[in-house]
Amino acid sequence: MLETTIAAIGPLDEPAMAAARDLQGRLTKPAGSLGALEELSVRLAGLAGACPPPLPEPAAVAIFAGDHGVHAQGVTPWPQEVTAQMIANFLAGGAVVNAFARQAGASVTVVDVGVATPLPVDPDAVAGGVGVAGRAVGPRLVAANVRRGTRDMSVTAALTRDEARVAVETGIRIAGELVDAGAGILLTGDMGIGNTTPSAALVAALTGTDPAEVTGRGTGVDDETYHRKVGVVRTALGRHRPDPADPLGLLAAVGGLEHAALAGLILGAAARRVPVLLDGVIAASAALVAAALAPDAVGAMVAGHRSAEPGATVALRHLGLDPLIDLGLRLGEGTGALLALPVVTGAVRVLHEVATFDSAGVSEK
Amino acid sequence: MLETTIAAIGPLDEPAMAAARDLQGRLTKPAGSLGALEELSVRLAGLAGACPPPLPEPAAVAIFAGDHGVHAQGVTPWPQEVTAQMIANFLAGGAVVNAFARQAGASVTVVDVGVATPLPVDPDAVAGGVGVAGRAVGPRLVAANVRRGTRDMSVTAALTRDEARVAVETGIRIAGELVDAGAGILLTGDMGIGNTTPSAALVAALTGTDPAEVTGRGTGVDDETYHRKVGVVRTALGRHRPDPADPLGLLAAVGGLEHAALAGLILGAAARRVPVLLDGVIAASAALVAAALAPDAVGAMVAGHRSAEPGATVALRHLGLDPLIDLGLRLGEGTGALLALPVVTGAVRVLHEVATFDSAGVSEK
Repeated sequence: MLETTIAAIGPLDEPAMAAARDLQGRLTKPAGSLGALEELSVRLAGLAGACPPPLPEPAAVAIFAGDHGVHAQGVTPWPQEVTAQMIANFLAGGAVVNAFARQAGASVTVVDVGVATPLPVDPDAVAGGVGVAGRAVGPRLVAANVRRGTRDMSVTAALTRDEARVAVETGIRIAGELVDAGAGILLTGDMGIGNTTPSAALVAALTGTDPAEVTGRGTGVDDETYHRKVGVVRTALGRHRPDPADPLGLLAAVGGLEHAALAGLILGAAARRVPVLLDGVIAASAALVAAALAPDAVGAMVAGHRSAEPGATVALRHLGLDPLIDLGLRLGEGTGALLALPVVTGAVRVLHEVATFDSAGVSEK
Repeated sequence: MLETTIAAIGPLDEPAMAAARDLQGRLTKPAGSLGALEELSVRLAGLAGACPPPLPEPAAVAIFAGDHGVHAQGVTPWPQEVTAQMIANFLAGGAVVNAFARQAGASVTVVDVGVATPLPVDPDAVAGGVGVAGRAVGPRLVAANVRRGTRDMSVTAALTRDEARVAVETGIRIAGELVDAGAGILLTGDMGIGNTTPSAALVAALTGTDPAEVTGRGTGVDDETYHRKVGVVRTALGRHRPDPADPLGLLAAVGGLEHAALAGLILGAAARRVPVLLDGVIAASAALVAAALAPDAVGAMVAGHRSAEPGATVALRHLGLDPLIDLGLRLGEGTGALLALPVVTGAVRVLHEVATFDSAGVSEK
């Protein structure tokens, strides 16, 4: 499934992009006055192979949840069971991602791809199928646990190569199911106590950056924990010396199950030529993996926001992506992507709804 | 009306702000992880005097339109009749502001406060009352022309002091009508060919900045026009030497009718303790005038976006406001404010809908 997905990913469609650029120049506004929204609309036309591209709706957030063996090294003050507790919160609709998703009319699909502790929810009550779109659709849980948390990457490989592949293919499958159900845009979400640590390792390895420059304070750790975290990332990379040209091997060495699944979601979206709106540093590190597997996948990516995590900025720069929102968020869950969604929709809506100078009888300069 | 409005504007409510800060710390997310949204929610609680503050909906965009005598100096390549033509476009729903307003569920009220040329619309067909809110409400026109464009500020005062006051009070009246009709937030909009020139003059005068630092390229003028524009602003300020401590006199000397009305809209919103979301440089310059008239009015202001116009950045810095969106927009109409609206709504929604650690049974660090 991974290989056929990668093979299906191609470049942006140049004629559709040229048509979008031409249309932007004829709409009733000074040329260029919509700033970054104009080029965004052009890219989305290229992805869809049509001008205007379809409005990116309904929107579907996929939250991949996993735990991390490296938690044992004290990289965060939060107990590991918070991952499972927050899944219950997502399913009850009480988290920030739920509030933002309700506002945006987006569905929320929670995928247990690697949670360590038992979920405090009745799987029969919420599992079964992937919900999508429509304001009335509540959050859903997909049970797809590959293993109950990764191994401690500072001691051994986090995953086997097969485990990494299964998680990537889970993400591809979820993307396909969401698009089949009608989603016009996918938003990345994540939950996993400790998951900024493997994110930093992935970004460092794939961009050739020192761990100290890409490791952040995650949920807001103190100086001592921060320095320990940088050391753990350095130790893991030193131990495994992962090859950036072997993305699956890299994921196995220092990745997380949610990172692997998010890379798959991105590849799946790109293969279906549906845009994928990236959240924070977990998504950005997964996007680097996806781009390493299929460089043209970058064409489907839209950077939702600039996370306060330094690794996110390094990763987005490496991908050539400028984030739409920059408000110092560092929550994850998909919250930054959801805040950016109206900007993406607005950029496309302009191509659908705005009059031209000709049609509106407005004089040009 | 101006004096009673100013007298009604007071400081933010400290107990409500303290309650919002406390609540932010108990919600199921790491403290501070929502970045700028947390402080925004605190300010809006202080404005409303309640925690949580009401959701800022429905939203109402008020587009004040005016023309400028300084157009005769060649500060823009666009013909003056485009102001009136764009009003027709707004009322037909064909402009970018209409597309964004439909997406956000905001009403659009166009106020002719100073258009020079006849409006190419049948006033009986669209005039009468101020529409507000509700996705189904189409754009409305309010006829409130104070004079058919300002005088050329590089030659004489743009307005009489009385004309400036009437325009400010028109803005106050519109704010009151929109709030009475149910609006939970007001968004500033503007239309006026040449109106970045008086904006630059207002910002220069009220912040003590050299015209060259606050004058921008507006719709994208060439080098020759740009240098002429800076010279016109310098000439006007040198001729009138307006006193920044006399905001009405300043508006009369170098302002525009839409600037005056926007200052009034902001004062009216602040007096009613309803937030006002600022668009670009026209709004930012009007906000400086409003703050000069009533310093506590700043508490009602939210900076929607950072316009590409340098004067906007200088004005927002002077007001102590950080913009929510920074995407290189320079269109006006209210478009930047509309893009930022979901961020404001989301910031407040968090206080309404997100579970606490206690209520959700999530462990703390």
